[in-house]
Amino acid sequence: MPKKLYGGIEAGGTKFVCVVAGGPSHIVDEVRYMTTTPEETLGRAIQFFQPFVASGQVSAIGVGSFGPVDLNPESATYGFITATPKPGWSHTNVLGVLQSALKVKIAFDSDVDVAGLGEYKWGASQGCDPSLYLTIGTGIGGGYIKDGRSLMGLLSPEMGHIRIPHSRELDPFRGSCPFHGDCFEGLASGPAIEKRLGVSGAVVPEHDAFWDIETEYIASALMNYILTLSPKKIIMGGGVMQREFLFPKVRRRVRELLNGYVSSKSISDNIDSYILPPGLGNQSGSLGAIALAMQIDEISSDPGI
Amino acid sequence: MPKKLYGGIEAGGTKFVCVVAGGPSHIVDEVRYMTTTPEETLGRAIQFFQPFVASGQVSAIGVGSFGPVDLNPESATYGFITATPKPGWSHTNVLGVLQSALKVKIAFDSDVDVAGLGEYKWGASQGCDPSLYLTIGTGIGGGYIKDGRSLMGLLSPEMGHIRIPHSRELDPFRGSCPFHGDCFEGLASGPAIEKRLGVSGAVVPEHDAFWDIETEYIASALMNYILTLSPKKIIMGGGVMQREFLFPKVRRRVRELLNGYVSSKSISDNIDSYILPPGLGNQSGSLGAIALAMQIDEISSDPGI
Repeated sequence: MPKKLYGGIEAGGTKFVCVVAGGPSHIVDEVRYMTTTPEETLGRAIQFFQPFVASGQVSAIGVGSFGPVDLNPESATYGFITATPKPGWSHTNVLGVLQSALKVKIAFDSDVDVAGLGEYKWGASQGCDPSLYLTIGTGIGGGYIKDGRSLMGLLSPEMGHIRIPHSRELDPFRGSCPFHGDCFEGLASGPAIEKRLGVSGAVVPEHDAFWDIETEYIASALMNYILTLSPKKIIMGGGVMQREFLFPKVRRRVRELLNGYVSSKSISDNIDSYILPPGLGNQSGSLGAIALAMQIDEISSDPGI
Repeated sequence: MPKKLYGGIEAGGTKFVCVVAGGPSHIVDEVRYMTTTPEETLGRAIQFFQPFVASGQVSAIGVGSFGPVDLNPESATYGFITATPKPGWSHTNVLGVLQSALKVKIAFDSDVDVAGLGEYKWGASQGCDPSLYLTIGTGIGGGYIKDGRSLMGLLSPEMGHIRIPHSRELDPFRGSCPFHGDCFEGLASGPAIEKRLGVSGAVVPEHDAFWDIETEYIASALMNYILTLSPKKIIMGGGVMQREFLFPKVRRRVRELLNGYVSSKSISDNIDSYILPPGLGNQSGSLGAIALAMQIDEISSDPGI
C-alpha cells in the first residue's frame, strides 16, 4: 500500500514553501517561491496542490502562516492574516481562499507553532512534551507544544513581547517595538539589532561586546519561559540564532541566572542538549505543516469537505 | 443515593485545613490547626480522615502542599516536601506517610496548583480553560490550569521567579530572593515589602507611593504571563492581594503595558472581570484539594489501593 500523503504550506512573509510528503524521508514534491500579492502567492499554492487533490493523493493540508494571524475558531476572521504591515496582505482570508479552491481539510496555525510541531514530531524536540520552539529573527515568537498540540488560550501566545530587565547604562537603545518599546522583541530581534548598531547582526563580529548584551536578553527571556512553561526542550531558530556562537553563550547565562533554582539535570548537567538549534534545519516550517495536516486528518475522519 | 464524599488537605506552612466534602455546598466535616512537626501535623490529618476511610465514605484524598514539592511521578522523592527552610519539614515524605496510614488513593500537588484547580472547578475562573491562579504572599507562585489539570512539564512551573524590569532609580531595593535577588518574588512578595520598608505591607497606607512600584512589578509579571500562557482568567490571591485597592491599579497598568497588542475584549473592555480575587475566598486551597481528589477518583477506577 502506498504511504499516505499530506500537503504542507510554510507561508512566510518573504517566501512560500509548498510540499507534498508522507514525512521527512518521503517528500514527493516541493516548490519554493517569493511572496508577492496574496492572489498570485496563494494562486501558485492552489495550482501546486490541485493535481494531488484531484487524484485523491492529498486530502489534508496544513498551513503555518506569518502573522499576525487569527487562530480563534469562533472568530469571524478565523484563518485570516490580520493587521500585518506587509503591503497587500492585511486582512487576507488565507484559510478561506485555499479551502474554497481546494475543497480538502485545511488546518491553519502560526508559522512558529507549526515549526514547533515539526520539531516535536521529527526534529530536535522529538517526543518532548511540553516543548518550546522560539524564533529570533525579523520578529520574536514562540510556539509551545503541549499534549502534541500548539497552545491556544485566550489567544495564541505572543511571548516575544514579554518585559525583561533592560539596563540603560549598558544599552541606551530605547527598543524598536512600536507597541512596547523595550520588550524582548524590541531589544533583541534582528531589526532591533540593526536599528541599534546601524548594521545587520549578520556582520557583527563574534567578539563584539554587543553579543553579551544580546545574550543577556535572550537568557532572561529563556529563564522566564522555563519558569513559566517548564518545557522539556527549547529549540531556537530564526536569523539571529544563525550565529551559532550564541548557543553556548546563552546556555551558560541561563544556567547562571537560574542559579540552581530549577533542580533538573536537563539544566544542571545537560543544558547543551536542552537548548538546541532546529533538528530539521530550514524545514521545520514545511515539515511542521505536514505534521499539522496529519493531525487534522486524524481528528476528522470525514471525507473531504 | 447519598452524594459521594472526598477528602482534601490544604497543607500550608502556617496551618493545615482538612476537609471532607462532596463540593463547596456539601462540606461534611472540617478541621483547622497550626502546622507544627511533620509527625504531629500529618498525624492529626490521619486521625481526622481515619473514620471516614474506615466507613468507606472517603476513598480518595487530594493534597495541596506548601513547597518546594517534588511533583515528578518518576522521581524517588515524588510526593515529598523537599528543601524547605521550614524547620523539621525538609525532605518530608508527605504522600508516603498519608498513603501508608490511610490506604486510599491520594493525589499530591502544590498549594497553588490546587487553589487554581478549586477556582477553575467552582470559583472565579470556573470553566475558563486555560486559567491562571497567582498568589502573592510569603512567596509568589502560579498554578496554570490547562485541560482541567495543573501544568506539569520538566518540573512544576516556578513562575514567581521570573525576571522583570527593575528601575534602581525608582526602587533602590536589591531584592530579597536568595537565588535571584530582584526577580518578581524578590521584589514584590510580602517579605520583600517588609524588608524594604521595615513594616508589613498590611500597614502601609493605600496612598503611599510604594504601591505604584508594587503595581508596576505585578503588572509586568501579569503581562508576561498573559503573553506566554494566554489564560482566559487570572485569579490573584495571597496576603499582599488582600489590599483590594491593588486590583484596579494592577488592571489599569496591565492594559497600559499591553498597549492594545493583545486584541481581546477580555482585556480591552472587560479587564475588571479578567483579573479577579478568588471566588472561593480562603477556601480555594481546601476545596481545590477536594477537586483534585475527584480527579484521581475519575482517573483510577480501581478499588482503594
